[in-house]
Amino acid sequence: MLSARRIACGLRQGRRVCKRAAGEFGGTEGSARMKNAAIAHGGGPTAVLNASLAAVCDAWAQHRECDSLFAAISGVWGILNNDFVDLAEGPKERISASAQAPGSIIGSSRQALTDQDYDTILEVFRKREIHCFFYTGGNGSMETALQLSRMARERRYELQVIGIPKTIDNDLAVTDHTPGYPSAARFFIHAARDIGLDNRALPSPVCILEALGRNTGWIAAATALARFHSDDPPHLIYFPERRLSLDRIAADVERVYRRIGRVVIVVCEGQLDDQGAPFGADVDRPDSTVHRLASNLAHTLAQELTRKLGLRARAEKPGLLGRSCGPLASQVDRKESEACGRAAVMAALAGETDKMVTLKRVSNSPYRCETGLTELANVARFERPLPDEWISAGANDIAGGFHKFLAPLVGELEVFPEMLSGDSVRTP
Amino acid sequence: MLSARRIACGLRQGRRVCKRAAGEFGGTEGSARMKNAAIAHGGGPTAVLNASLAAVCDAWAQHRECDSLFAAISGVWGILNNDFVDLAEGPKERISASAQAPGSIIGSSRQALTDQDYDTILEVFRKREIHCFFYTGGNGSMETALQLSRMARERRYELQVIGIPKTIDNDLAVTDHTPGYPSAARFFIHAARDIGLDNRALPSPVCILEALGRNTGWIAAATALARFHSDDPPHLIYFPERRLSLDRIAADVERVYRRIGRVVIVVCEGQLDDQGAPFGADVDRPDSTVHRLASNLAHTLAQELTRKLGLRARAEKPGLLGRSCGPLASQVDRKESEACGRAAVMAALAGETDKMVTLKRVSNSPYRCETGLTELANVARFERPLPDEWISAGANDIAGGFHKFLAPLVGELEVFPEMLSGDSVRTP
Repeated sequence: MLSARRIACGLRQGRRVCKRAAGEFGGTEGSARMKNAAIAHGGGPTAVLNASLAAVCDAWAQHRECDSLFAAISGVWGILNNDFVDLAEGPKERISASAQAPGSIIGSSRQALTDQDYDTILEVFRKREIHCFFYTGGNGSMETALQLSRMARERRYELQVIGIPKTIDNDLAVTDHTPGYPSAARFFIHAARDIGLDNRALPSPVCILEALGRNTGWIAAATALARFHSDDPPHLIYFPERRLSLDRIAADVERVYRRIGRVVIVVCEGQLDDQGAPFGADVDRPDSTVHRLASNLAHTLAQELTRKLGLRARAEKPGLLGRSCGPLASQVDRKESEACGRAAVMAALAGETDKMVTLKRVSNSPYRCETGLTELANVARFERPLPDEWISAGANDIAGGFHKFLAPLVGELEVFPEMLSGDSVRTP
Repeated sequence: MLSARRIACGLRQGRRVCKRAAGEFGGTEGSARMKNAAIAHGGGPTAVLNASLAAVCDAWAQHRECDSLFAAISGVWGILNNDFVDLAEGPKERISASAQAPGSIIGSSRQALTDQDYDTILEVFRKREIHCFFYTGGNGSMETALQLSRMARERRYELQVIGIPKTIDNDLAVTDHTPGYPSAARFFIHAARDIGLDNRALPSPVCILEALGRNTGWIAAATALARFHSDDPPHLIYFPERRLSLDRIAADVERVYRRIGRVVIVVCEGQLDDQGAPFGADVDRPDSTVHRLASNLAHTLAQELTRKLGLRARAEKPGLLGRSCGPLASQVDRKESEACGRAAVMAALAGETDKMVTLKRVSNSPYRCETGLTELANVARFERPLPDEWISAGANDIAGGFHKFLAPLVGELEVFPEMLSGDSVRTP
């Protein structure tokens, strides 16, 4: 049974008035009943989120051309406010043109849902005959997806729910890594390399680069791949997984400064000191679950180090650019983001529900990754920290196999010659 | 007469033991006397400074293969400490490989010179038989170059001095624009575009991007080229040429916010309020001639706007990455930086002195630029602000022909589709 609007669209556009095959959707009871899908984005955008959306859109059109794929505008806000765009109907060219764009062409949200909200969502789904929901996000979004699926079962509303992994934080469990992370990693590797080259040419005693990462140090760790020659920066990398006193950091800085006369430090926006405080930096609210807007951690740390050591210090904070810089996105990341989108559609067609798509590393050299599935319950809310064995004993550098883990994900990095040294030691 | 070291080198490497042609160097008295050159970098590096150095090195080798080209390590510091590398002797491959690298492969410095320092420099030059000096930098460096030339004349030391323009600030007079600026402009255009796409997908009410620029708004102005669709960010751009009260900025922000629900602002690190103060931000020292290390202007402004308007605000500060990001350098800039390097050598060979190389725009469509020369006295110390006619009446946007001026310098920019809008107005 097509809705009035759908019939009108079909007639208007001279397409999509197709004969519906019975039972083509796996896991349903085989009726010829309408089965539309919806997709929404949750949490912060990435440089490759649109690539995943474009792949979902494309795969859906290939296999389910008669059914709508409603994209919620501005994440769950769009569902709650019944604001969608039917990707199967119109803007295919815009969707595919946006695949290279950072951000999200359908928007996203961080809105927390109440019990009432879940009922509202199911009501909206019912009206639009949506029985399949793709939710792209991190561990918070997977929790939401799982909760929605449970609520639907309680209300006896038939709904398949498939999670598509996305977070620059790389803190989703089970999956080898998460789409969005390799691009953020690639950005910060370049930032560390190029700020390092600048700082080497005209040294300021201390230069701090603030990396994204509230609770985990995956992105900060990535900057270790910016080192190509001895004494290349970053000279110190700190991780939110290890709380450290200002004294300890100052001692590290002084040691490096005495040896080479300049110190490039990478620190996460969410780094805390040994008292669990952000070194006196501004934070919006004291509890760590709140997404800070106005972090100035690196600047505050720079001021504190200047005060303590008498060394001039400066801080750089690319901030949102770190997750949105299109030209520095990883091509591996883009392809995997697309693969996750396609895999989500195939999982839905196979009748799966309450699953999130994962990436499984089949081989590291040559690098090869496949998609898989895991239960939403395995990833919802769980935050995967940087493993202990990848953090150095001094808690100021990476260790172990981290380099090998990350290198294939970020693509090629241009290596430049070392700075020239003079002849003063050889001439009078 | 070759120095002991030079002969040794020539024998060792089996080259550069060449017959010296008499009078090949323009403007000299035609003797077969030694005529080495030196090059040094002054001030902050850029993404294309090494390209200019590689071009000087290449042109020098082509025309003066028998004479040394001494590169001072770490700017004037290297001269004062007699620390050089002879680019004509060894590291040609490293120099040409570094042409794509940000920073400076020979380093730079901001050291201010005393009268005694000038004498020391001339003494070092005399010992190394340096009679030609290339100094790459901005208006401060050109002042130093001019001063050195005057001192040499006073001391009856034969010295040609040629300035090579370089500054991301684009504040050198006479030249159409300055190498280094187009790359910094291209970086900040991308930063504004991609932070804008991110902010559009997941709006924070106020997002401030801190651009480089202490006294002039050339880089901030560039971000206007990130707009491709209506209401694309930045929605407000401020310029150090126009001091503005916090009230005035807050009124601008509130107006934009009421209309579209999000505001992306670009502000320079050196912006001052109507009292000449930096809105309460940290600065190293109160006088504006000091190079700030620890600016947190955008963050401070974000906090002040939150306090005043009750809107959550965040700030991003790419900082040094803005002048050093290799992958976002402008190819036009790189070519022009090389052209300026070559032109400097040709000017020296033609016997010129006390001149700086300039860029002259011959045609805008198609864009074509040639090199020229101007007296050092025309550029030394003079700081060219963004012209009045390129700043809007409200002092919060560009105006006039700025877009036309900048567009050909930054190269192609990828345009992405607008965000999709939903059907909520069309459906029940």
